[in-house]
Amino acid sequence: MKLPLTPLDFLTRARRLFADRVGVVQGDDLRMTYATFARRCDGLATLLRDDLGVRPGDRVAFLAGNVHELLEAYYGVLLAGAVLLPLNIRNSAPELAACLADSRAAALFRDPALPDPGFGGPTVVLGERDWGQADEPFPLPDVDEDDPAELFYTSGSTGRAKGALLSHRALYLHAVHNALTNGMGGHDVLLHTIPLFHVNGWGTAHFLTGLGGTHVMLPRFDAAEVLRMVEREGVTRLFLVPTMALTLLDHPDVGQRDLSSVQQVSLGGAPSTPALLAAVEEAFGCEAICGYGMTESSPTLTRSLDKPGTPKSRIRRATTGLPIVGVDLRVLDDHDAEVPWDATTIGEVCARSNHVMIGYWERPDETAEALRGGWLRTGDLAVVDAEGYVTIVDRRRDLIVSGGENIASVEVEAALATHPAVREVAVVGLADERWGEVPAAFVSVPDGMPPPTEEELIEWVRARLARFKAPKVVRVLDELPKGGTGKIDKLALRARLVEG
Amino acid sequence: MKLPLTPLDFLTRARRLFADRVGVVQGDDLRMTYATFARRCDGLATLLRDDLGVRPGDRVAFLAGNVHELLEAYYGVLLAGAVLLPLNIRNSAPELAACLADSRAAALFRDPALPDPGFGGPTVVLGERDWGQADEPFPLPDVDEDDPAELFYTSGSTGRAKGALLSHRALYLHAVHNALTNGMGGHDVLLHTIPLFHVNGWGTAHFLTGLGGTHVMLPRFDAAEVLRMVEREGVTRLFLVPTMALTLLDHPDVGQRDLSSVQQVSLGGAPSTPALLAAVEEAFGCEAICGYGMTESSPTLTRSLDKPGTPKSRIRRATTGLPIVGVDLRVLDDHDAEVPWDATTIGEVCARSNHVMIGYWERPDETAEALRGGWLRTGDLAVVDAEGYVTIVDRRRDLIVSGGENIASVEVEAALATHPAVREVAVVGLADERWGEVPAAFVSVPDGMPPPTEEELIEWVRARLARFKAPKVVRVLDELPKGGTGKIDKLALRARLVEG
Repeated sequence: MKLPLTPLDFLTRARRLFADRVGVVQGDDLRMTYATFARRCDGLATLLRDDLGVRPGDRVAFLAGNVHELLEAYYGVLLAGAVLLPLNIRNSAPELAACLADSRAAALFRDPALPDPGFGGPTVVLGERDWGQADEPFPLPDVDEDDPAELFYTSGSTGRAKGALLSHRALYLHAVHNALTNGMGGHDVLLHTIPLFHVNGWGTAHFLTGLGGTHVMLPRFDAAEVLRMVEREGVTRLFLVPTMALTLLDHPDVGQRDLSSVQQVSLGGAPSTPALLAAVEEAFGCEAICGYGMTESSPTLTRSLDKPGTPKSRIRRATTGLPIVGVDLRVLDDHDAEVPWDATTIGEVCARSNHVMIGYWERPDETAEALRGGWLRTGDLAVVDAEGYVTIVDRRRDLIVSGGENIASVEVEAALATHPAVREVAVVGLADERWGEVPAAFVSVPDGMPPPTEEELIEWVRARLARFKAPKVVRVLDELPKGGTGKIDKLALRARLVEG
Repeated sequence: MKLPLTPLDFLTRARRLFADRVGVVQGDDLRMTYATFARRCDGLATLLRDDLGVRPGDRVAFLAGNVHELLEAYYGVLLAGAVLLPLNIRNSAPELAACLADSRAAALFRDPALPDPGFGGPTVVLGERDWGQADEPFPLPDVDEDDPAELFYTSGSTGRAKGALLSHRALYLHAVHNALTNGMGGHDVLLHTIPLFHVNGWGTAHFLTGLGGTHVMLPRFDAAEVLRMVEREGVTRLFLVPTMALTLLDHPDVGQRDLSSVQQVSLGGAPSTPALLAAVEEAFGCEAICGYGMTESSPTLTRSLDKPGTPKSRIRRATTGLPIVGVDLRVLDDHDAEVPWDATTIGEVCARSNHVMIGYWERPDETAEALRGGWLRTGDLAVVDAEGYVTIVDRRRDLIVSGGENIASVEVEAALATHPAVREVAVVGLADERWGEVPAAFVSVPDGMPPPTEEELIEWVRARLARFKAPKVVRVLDELPKGGTGKIDKLALRARLVEG
């Protein structure tokens, strides 16, 4: 018997088996059973079909933080047969407008507190219009498991955001494999610290619903609120980027709140260190592990769990980890041969998995390049130790990852290059304790022109791109260093940053 | 990216990630790492291809208890592109010969201590010829996930054994879903009490390998040996049919051995009672749950785990349970409508799932009947309580389940009917504390003939069928009771047994 693999099964399961269970909590006033949650998903699907004219296959955009409406969209949009397009709330209005135009979105749901991308199509402003609960379950759509279900825009190294298209099958299998590898179950209470608009919310929207666990929504990351909710709701799992972990560790409430319910903290989005893991483990009184993934793979590729039968090791748990169930991950050399497991030889992290995207939305050339030879080419460089644990040693070329967000250096460079006092420009990542990396810019000035101030150039970028993409440091040089072919030598610039 | 779902992934994972881990233990002398296990699977595949001439799609039969060779066959046969056909060692030689003929098996591997089915094709006698480790990994076959991977013969109610054909996709998803629902992981040490030749070994061969857990082989069920191995290997999970549980509870060693490693006992194959669960929980100092399934669904359909957020309840855990992830299980009335969840209204247990068989091997009519309307019709009758827990209230029509083995009453009837002193015959299930059910026969005698003795009739059946199929009780009546249509009224006969 062959039935389509679809995340909608998780909703059906929650609706049937966990109807009376409080499945979704938000703030002090909202506690929703799965029966109510499912009926609200039905209500959203009805609104899409009957009022907004959304047809199967259409893209439906959401611009919101981690509110229950976005969690509902993970199911309601799919019930209507449409494709969910969660937008990154940290993007600027022009960047958002570009995603909406590129995807030809059929409708937009937006939080009025966020920048208005000026969308011309049907728009629902959250808080002003609510879909409520449907009287009847919305009929399940006729799903082909290979059809797209979600679309996420990601800044590739070109700086032009591309939409990664994920199928029902990919999302279903990712959720099941991720939960299985990490031992997650219906007893788990998960605080949504990681944006649901990001890389499929690390799969949390799916597996937790299907297993009957509890979602605690967190509309905006706030350390005091995180610690309060952990205590109040008995949160068992925390997914954090290192930046969030550092913010929590610095907060005075960390010693005041009862955090004993937390059983695991999972760190991802940027490399961690054994020292950070130790600090997290002490603060939360539980084990911390790392994970790694990317939008193109739904996203989880690895988790740094200790292997069964091996002694606990924080050094191991601070690595990038081992592939999760359902992922064949290999570090390949230039001839696509696996590098030796010697903790020394560097290769590119590549993955084969059902979790990998269908492709980039309407970008066949970039898709072919990303999936060359049947492997997802992550662009990340790594070594493998004798036990098979992968450790990333260099960010993918020309991509800066800051607080879990991708920043294409070329995009920042293009913005700076429009300044009249900039002749040459290069942007590289500067290691930062809090953000992982921040952009740092080097510029040279046309002959005879007075050099612009650091503040002036930072402001120039802020006016053109999302704020987090602006460089934190700008240095003016007489001339930028070049390699043999005349290309700007970014390695030399990075070295100069480290020295300085 | 779309890759075939296949249990071979579990072997690849164990080979790559858990190479040094002791994966398979048997008796006092055998401790195999996953590296060795994988190379032995390669060796078996090489033997099949090079020496036995097995071609992709061929059926390869195994006649053995829970020995490491059969566990290797779960992967080695699939590596060779063939279909694994594990035979039931409790069957008689003619029954085995019928399965081999019906499936047109290409090769047979057999334990010389078991009945020789007189197979004419290539045969490997275990212990006399060993495949050893291959020097090189066997190349992964080009699998279509919908292709068959395993074939299990099962006594349907017709008495003619039918082969249930299970696909790579079904077996893969069953393993993942089963482990996820039940929270099993790489830390688990599992003692193979349940025959691997039975209903896919409840999926244990697959998920445990992929997660890097430890298999403890048990060639033959023996209570003292079970308890010894639990203590020695630190077994964490026990899968038992109630008959096995009772045997263990009765054994004097139960109070002598350290059984504290056991974290869960899972009972299946026959209904349990809260009293049995209580006795098991006390003896093993852990939680006991029930499960339910059938060959046609890979097999697990339900587990009686307490729902998250509900108080622990042994009464609930003694029910048939809730569907596992990936199974849509409903109790349907005669019009295929779901019965109310009132713990009273009886319907037939039906299931839709990717775990359900492709169909019966070369039996299109019986396949169509079993999968009528897109549901697997289990033939089991059940009620559903207000929380959705299913409880089976009657065995499927004319099928007796004794010690976890199916016995078709018509088959026993046919054997008895060949006796010259039997005029009418009916066989029904008699409740039995140890075996769940045992066959009980009612016969009438041709006019003027002296009635045969009970022992004579039991011996008559034993000479013709597997020993466990022989009735434990035979009653001679003047005439068997009939219903309105003249059919023998088995309900009346069952009632008579209960009175007696």
